[in-house]
Amino acid sequence: VQGLARWGGMRPISVQALKPSDRFEPRHNSITEAEKQHMARLCGFDSLDALVEATVPAAIKRTDGMPLGPKYHEGLTENEFLTMFKEMAGKNKVFKNYIGMGYYGTHVPTVILRNLLENPGWYTQYTPYQAEISQGRLESLLNFQTMVSDLTGMTMSNASLLDESTAAAEAMTMCSAVARGKKPRFLVSDKCHPQTIAVCQTRADGLGLKVEVMDEGSFSMDSDVCGILLQYPATDGSVHNYKDIAAKATAAKVKVVVATDLLALTKLTPPGEWGADIVIGSAQRFGVPLGYGGPHAAFLACHEEYKRLLPGRIIGVSRDAQGQPTLRMAMQTREQHIRRDKATSNICTAQALLANIAAMYAVYHGPEGLKQIATRVNGLAAILSEGAKKLGLTVGSAPFFDTVRITVGDSAAVVKLAASKGVNLRQLDSSTITVSVDETTTLADLDQLLAILNGGNAAGFTAEGLAPSVSGGTPGFERTSDFLTHPVFSSYHTEHELLRYLKRLENKDLSLCHSMIALGSCTMKLNATSEMIPITWPELSDIHPFAPMDQVEGYQEMFKDLAQQLATITGFDAVSLQPNSGASGEYAGLMAIRAYHQSRGDHHRNVCIIPVSAHGTNPASAVMAGMTIVPVGVDAKGNINIAELKQKAEQHKDKLAALMITYPSTHGVYEEGVDDICKSIHDNGGQVYMDGANMNAQVGLTAPGIIGADVCHLNLHKTFCIPHGGGGPGMGPIGIKAHLAPFMPTHPVVPTGAYPDFKGDKDSFGCMAAAPYGSSLILPISYAYISMMGSQALTNASKLAILNANYMAKRLEDHYPVLFRGANGTCAHEFIIDIRPITDSTGIEAEDIAKRLMDYGFHAPTMSWPVSGTLMIEPTESESKAELDRFCEAMISIRREVAEIEAGKADPKNNALKHAPHSADVVLASEWDRPYSRESAAYPAAWVKQSKFWPTNSRVDNVFGDRHLVLRLPKVAPDTGAASDE
Amino acid sequence: VQGLARWGGMRPISVQALKPSDRFEPRHNSITEAEKQHMARLCGFDSLDALVEATVPAAIKRTDGMPLGPKYHEGLTENEFLTMFKEMAGKNKVFKNYIGMGYYGTHVPTVILRNLLENPGWYTQYTPYQAEISQGRLESLLNFQTMVSDLTGMTMSNASLLDESTAAAEAMTMCSAVARGKKPRFLVSDKCHPQTIAVCQTRADGLGLKVEVMDEGSFSMDSDVCGILLQYPATDGSVHNYKDIAAKATAAKVKVVVATDLLALTKLTPPGEWGADIVIGSAQRFGVPLGYGGPHAAFLACHEEYKRLLPGRIIGVSRDAQGQPTLRMAMQTREQHIRRDKATSNICTAQALLANIAAMYAVYHGPEGLKQIATRVNGLAAILSEGAKKLGLTVGSAPFFDTVRITVGDSAAVVKLAASKGVNLRQLDSSTITVSVDETTTLADLDQLLAILNGGNAAGFTAEGLAPSVSGGTPGFERTSDFLTHPVFSSYHTEHELLRYLKRLENKDLSLCHSMIALGSCTMKLNATSEMIPITWPELSDIHPFAPMDQVEGYQEMFKDLAQQLATITGFDAVSLQPNSGASGEYAGLMAIRAYHQSRGDHHRNVCIIPVSAHGTNPASAVMAGMTIVPVGVDAKGNINIAELKQKAEQHKDKLAALMITYPSTHGVYEEGVDDICKSIHDNGGQVYMDGANMNAQVGLTAPGIIGADVCHLNLHKTFCIPHGGGGPGMGPIGIKAHLAPFMPTHPVVPTGAYPDFKGDKDSFGCMAAAPYGSSLILPISYAYISMMGSQALTNASKLAILNANYMAKRLEDHYPVLFRGANGTCAHEFIIDIRPITDSTGIEAEDIAKRLMDYGFHAPTMSWPVSGTLMIEPTESESKAELDRFCEAMISIRREVAEIEAGKADPKNNALKHAPHSADVVLASEWDRPYSRESAAYPAAWVKQSKFWPTNSRVDNVFGDRHLVLRLPKVAPDTGAASDE
Ligand SMILES: Cc1ncc(COP(=O)(O)O)c(C=O)c1O
Ligand SMILES: Cc1ncc(COP(=O)(O)O)c(C=O)c1O
Ligand SMILES: O=C([O-])O
Repeated sequence: VQGLARWGGMRPISVQALKPSDRFEPRHNSITEAEKQHMARLCGFDSLDALVEATVPAAIKRTDGMPLGPKYHEGLTENEFLTMFKEMAGKNKVFKNYIGMGYYGTHVPTVILRNLLENPGWYTQYTPYQAEISQGRLESLLNFQTMVSDLTGMTMSNASLLDESTAAAEAMTMCSAVARGKKPRFLVSDKCHPQTIAVCQTRADGLGLKVEVMDEGSFSMDSDVCGILLQYPATDGSVHNYKDIAAKATAAKVKVVVATDLLALTKLTPPGEWGADIVIGSAQRFGVPLGYGGPHAAFLACHEEYKRLLPGRIIGVSRDAQGQPTLRMAMQTREQHIRRDKATSNICTAQALLANIAAMYAVYHGPEGLKQIATRVNGLAAILSEGAKKLGLTVGSAPFFDTVRITVGDSAAVVKLAASKGVNLRQLDSSTITVSVDETTTLADLDQLLAILNGGNAAGFTAEGLAPSVSGGTPGFERTSDFLTHPVFSSYHTEHELLRYLKRLENKDLSLCHSMIALGSCTMKLNATSEMIPITWPELSDIHPFAPMDQVEGYQEMFKDLAQQLATITGFDAVSLQPNSGASGEYAGLMAIRAYHQSRGDHHRNVCIIPVSAHGTNPASAVMAGMTIVPVGVDAKGNINIAELKQKAEQHKDKLAALMITYPSTHGVYEEGVDDICKSIHDNGGQVYMDGANMNAQVGLTAPGIIGADVCHLNLHKTFCIPHGGGGPGMGPIGIKAHLAPFMPTHPVVPTGAYPDFKGDKDSFGCMAAAPYGSSLILPISYAYISMMGSQALTNASKLAILNANYMAKRLEDHYPVLFRGANGTCAHEFIIDIRPITDSTGIEAEDIAKRLMDYGFHAPTMSWPVSGTLMIEPTESESKAELDRFCEAMISIRREVAEIEAGKADPKNNALKHAPHSADVVLASEWDRPYSRESAAYPAAWVKQSKFWPTNSRVDNVFGDRHLVLRLPKVAPDTGAASDE
Repeated sequence: VQGLARWGGMRPISVQALKPSDRFEPRHNSITEAEKQHMARLCGFDSLDALVEATVPAAIKRTDGMPLGPKYHEGLTENEFLTMFKEMAGKNKVFKNYIGMGYYGTHVPTVILRNLLENPGWYTQYTPYQAEISQGRLESLLNFQTMVSDLTGMTMSNASLLDESTAAAEAMTMCSAVARGKKPRFLVSDKCHPQTIAVCQTRADGLGLKVEVMDEGSFSMDSDVCGILLQYPATDGSVHNYKDIAAKATAAKVKVVVATDLLALTKLTPPGEWGADIVIGSAQRFGVPLGYGGPHAAFLACHEEYKRLLPGRIIGVSRDAQGQPTLRMAMQTREQHIRRDKATSNICTAQALLANIAAMYAVYHGPEGLKQIATRVNGLAAILSEGAKKLGLTVGSAPFFDTVRITVGDSAAVVKLAASKGVNLRQLDSSTITVSVDETTTLADLDQLLAILNGGNAAGFTAEGLAPSVSGGTPGFERTSDFLTHPVFSSYHTEHELLRYLKRLENKDLSLCHSMIALGSCTMKLNATSEMIPITWPELSDIHPFAPMDQVEGYQEMFKDLAQQLATITGFDAVSLQPNSGASGEYAGLMAIRAYHQSRGDHHRNVCIIPVSAHGTNPASAVMAGMTIVPVGVDAKGNINIAELKQKAEQHKDKLAALMITYPSTHGVYEEGVDDICKSIHDNGGQVYMDGANMNAQVGLTAPGIIGADVCHLNLHKTFCIPHGGGGPGMGPIGIKAHLAPFMPTHPVVPTGAYPDFKGDKDSFGCMAAAPYGSSLILPISYAYISMMGSQALTNASKLAILNANYMAKRLEDHYPVLFRGANGTCAHEFIIDIRPITDSTGIEAEDIAKRLMDYGFHAPTMSWPVSGTLMIEPTESESKAELDRFCEAMISIRREVAEIEAGKADPKNNALKHAPHSADVVLASEWDRPYSRESAAYPAAWVKQSKFWPTNSRVDNVFGDRHLVLRLPKVAPDTGAASDE
């Protein structure tokens, strides 16, 4: 071999170049160095730093570099994070769970796991406000409502609530509302789950209601009782006939709320058939992992007459401009963005993704499959009961569905023995345990359980051997009515059919997989795969929320680290992880403020000042915390009217409880004087609640704690990368100053409290969620994001979010007036463009532009909120310049279309904007009599052709749907075989 | 509480009802009991069993119930399988690997992992024969070709080969072909990987070539030398200047083949710039998991002049009927289905899915990102080398890229010490090791390596400390030419951009996620999620193929169990898992037959009888095994002409080596007399090779071993659920009778052989794949399928595959003549409909119908194979009756459209069939002058509207593309910034 080359002219190696190559920041923060400079210049600044400098008021600037601590400060690579966290998660112990209490083992069908839960095509969408490009998950949510209505025997259902306990509390609120607030007492059966009782008690406290817990046999239907709550089957597994109680209640105009279990209802007479007015529960065991407590989809079903009181999102059938059936969210006028403090509830983000999983589980198994599962579960329970009897133990009397109550003598010892075998049982009292079996339980598991009941020695007989001599069933309660009769529940039982159904629905929905979704206030940023991967690890997903502490060391370590990270980011001292939505965070924060005032004897402090520009959940939450709202206006520039605010604070100083303030403002502006505002509230004895929805503009640049807030919620599903899931899940932990920490939420089963202790506190305002740490399973998403970014990249993210917004505002300002800007002419991370001048001159409305954007392949920005007749655009830092430009070009192109109308060249009624969106059906119909071309309708820009996203329908008719309310699929008689609409 | 219900009237519990509810069979086998009966009746039989009875010849019927053994016989539930297999896989030990030898650690970008490798939208497609509905992966494969061409500095590349070693063998074959077979010698550098040398030697054996291995300095470019093989960088890490050798070879008309490494080529002058004629290698380290050896995408690049000799699939740019650029497979006339024994190679299924991953890895990192990774890897190697020197050890002289050669004294002891620390090193010889670092290596890893080199004690200095004093680089070899200049390699570097690019491409391709793909002979059945889940478990994916046996106990146990299952299913004694495609299986089987004959002194036995109806890979493989093909015809009913076959067997009895026979026949018929045929071959001294592509009709009903075959390959990617991946990966293990077992393939690094021993045998015919067990990582898919089905469900699958085919044949026979059927009028698992009568009467051809099916949302059946002018339909057992009916209705509707032409109501040239498929562009164009409506073009059936799948293009023009061959994206000069075609 000739000429082995010689060394020479080689470069020394920089340590920087030896860092691992899978750094996360450049995958998330999308603007290159070169682009950064160019964009800042375009905005009139020398550099990005100069732009940020001009944007964030000097008085509140953060200067400490946001030190996340040695482990996280630099940011881990994707691989480092996954390796480190796999080890941490491995400290959790996956036991067999028979604890029950509303949480049960379930087999997530793997086809659903992979193609729904692990699929960004399902998890990155927003709430389906834009119906024409959301028909997929709207269909799935209608399946969910149908499933719930059928199984509960009720007329209608909503499309999910946060959890079973808050659903009970929402039902209680409905009962009170039915009585127009005139009946303050609510009676609760002592056979309800303890967390349900606790949440109702806490919620009643804020609402001025009174919960009384007792044996339901002692219920007295007095005239000041608005409702009663029964649980069926009861928390100890017993199944009772509540028909007479319900009849008595009804006779006394007392509303009957029933907490129930969907799987049990495949066997038991549904509450709707024996007198329930409202039925609530959790759909968790329909294929949704335990996840140490959530997220899971709860449900609330009721009769038609309460429809306007129904909390949460509701999907209904309407029609489009062509008269085609079209699904959309119904009766939105009940919600907070319209009714504010008079809204039916503060629920905004709920649990759409999990409702979809549960619905698909029902679609996959069908009515017969579900019945088989239930029969099997019930059979296993019956065998266990019989086996326990055979071992000489006393068991709860039949009937039961899945939970056997066993008197064991020293129940603590039995629970301990079980734990030593990797088995979790529930200790009901000092001598009693319950054992809840579920879909995942096997005959071998029963043998193990029997051995445990036998003091650790094999029972001498087997469960299988016992089976033929045991009878199952729930006599006296047997369900006779059919359910899930619609063909959707009997068409997709093979994996190929379900896979295609899942993909068919997915492909109807525009998600972040297609294009940017610049929804102002929603922060639709990247939900990175490495953040999502851990949530389907069994070490995280298969943990019962009430598992003993020594089984959840991985979770607890992660909670500590995440809470520490969030405390550092927000500049607070303590963090509660219980609230599982932004609105829940608001409620928790206000309840803590309330408890704080009360602890100081300030029972009269109940005035909450809220700017009129606030998100509707703010007043709705304040009402739930027992506060009286005092609104404060904004000036012409959109800023809070400080003089008015100060004046109101003074005026109400004796009763002032709190201010709720969003920062940067809901108008997308870094308002000056916020420190001043906070001071004035404090001076008048109030506390400052900051709505953290806009945290994405703050991270590393300032912080609620620096600004002067006392408490702030974080929508982890905005700033911290939890995907929106088509309307949930989310998480709304709150950060607080030390003086509020003692009041943080706790839990009756697992004393919770706040970081850094995570111990329940006697001063806690109560319990506000079914699970001690809310939707624990999705916390790793935010934890991964923060850990992989590190201090600097997180700060860069906020800077780039601001840069991207200012860049777009700049590109659009010659075409659309930009409504509000800060002192130096910059916006924060989002901005509002005003459509009203166009409306005035042409009749084209914000909605027309929103719908026309669909033809360009884009989801509309936030429409007519916070200002009617506007669009609010929030790009986020994880959109590339190319994508921002594409969106701007679409908006500019639309403006040109408007100009055609202005110039009289296009018809003001019959044009591509008014007819938008254009479905394929419409543009290829033989008949085409419109004054614009088919091509301009469907391919309004060159790039659209490369990957056209087709809206399923043309413009939805919202009014029609609300006038002809249809909230479920039709029932189908067995002989017809087909539903009328299929 | 009133009225606790009493027990009474309850049913005893059947043990059957207590079985776990997640049984797999009903998710896979799709026909319900009720449908079964109905369908059998329609086919003229009382029951499914009667239909099967009439179909499978009595002489070969299986009667033993196919006992899979106690563990698997009943079939595990999905959950049971995953739990059991997780434990088994856990017996593998994931070590840090520095073994190199063509296999390197790599970070699979998680966005690619989840959205490509784990996404049925990418893995369930077939080879992109139908270009108009395959533009997504065609684009990705063109990216792959561009990447390979750019990095190697060659003009063109194919779209993947099976592995690096077989790619070298294919290159050798090309060299021989260039010399028109007149130069039998091929010189191989002894610095090539041992498995590459072994595969070339084995392959040469069959082809009558002679491989000579020596130091490349000793190459003598004699006139009988067709080519030389060099490796760059060499297997020991050294980088040599081969320019002069290449020049000498070229001067002597000897072709220069270079094996190389894509990552190294980002730093090193590419072979194309110093004289290579053919460049081969593996793209594994571009984001494809190690997977204990595969699947990985190999590549082969060459200069334009050899294009007609290029093996494997090649993607090229053409245009469609509207003149729009359209990608499609180029130069298909080179392939076996056209050229049979004269084809360029027997490669059919290759590694498309893995090529896509590698291409996306390059798209995600871009040229700068790849250079950074390479610079880092090279820097780490330089530091290691310097550190070793500092420890007083002798290291290989520079330059090197990633592999450091170190003289350590007792190399076995060092390797052992390393293993005790969880580290794998390569022992090069008794005193030398090599250490290959890669993308996953860190500075901390170097410290560990240095400690190992220091006898287990910390080195006293750190790698990081060393860095500044070390020089990296490869002076004298530095690459100056740019690469990956096309914008596709610099547009998708953020996760959002890549995610959207992945989804955009995915959505252009029709896959099993959309509808059934009834490709005859391809068995496009369900690839169930639970089968796919394990392949991305690190315990399986992060294992080096040459890891010591004590680290792969999980794999070995799975191999044993799977091989045992396959042996039982096929009725054979032994199984080799090395061949990684059907065609490779053919080659392996024939080579084993050849070795068997030779072992008996029958060196002259080289005649292989192959029916004319055989798949083209059969003759192509036989040629590679050194056999002479004697064809035998078929009779009018499509059956092998038994008389002729017997006559030919007799005639060639002295030279008879083998018969290759497909069963059921490629015509989809359970031919009678196959036992007779086998007997006649055996009587004349031959062996029977069975092509197992149609195994899906046999499982549980008969078996190759029962029928009389001596060897048979199994396309695991057909019958046993490995997804087709858009053209691979696949696996083609072979089952053999005991007398052939000693000849099974082995491996120079890991002695392999066949089940039940899995020990290499001295009588082995050699090595045929780079990895000892082929594409080990995907074997769990088949293992999962078999284990979850169990004996009975597998048998049911074959029965239902037969039922579905007969049902469809019945529904279609009044509309299209069904060509061949068995003795009792039934087909097997597929059937052929004849389009020629229609062509005669109307000019409408099979292709027109195939393209028109796209408008209905269906992929065409197999077109014009095995009989020209026909369509071959194979439904498989995992399609529901609803889906079969939908497909039949589409075909019947198309027949009606043909009838319009027959009736003179439609124009024979200007109609919806001839213009099919209809892209959205076409049907919505303002201009529409066709005699049929837009709606009938796009929505030819009602159901189409519900979820329209739009073909990207109208009819592709194949001829144009082959005349104007474009096999890569254009290079783009840095200043222009945009490619001409973008
Ligand atoms: C400013 C603001 N506050 C509060 C909320 C409520 O948060 P969540 O939907 O998580 O309940 C939102 C939600 O969009 C918001 O934008
Ligand atoms: C009958 C037959 N034999 C052999 C093969 C080749 O198998 P592979 O593509 O796995 O190499 C095929 C592939 O379709 C086939 O149908
Ligand atoms: O969902 C919102 O109301 O922002």
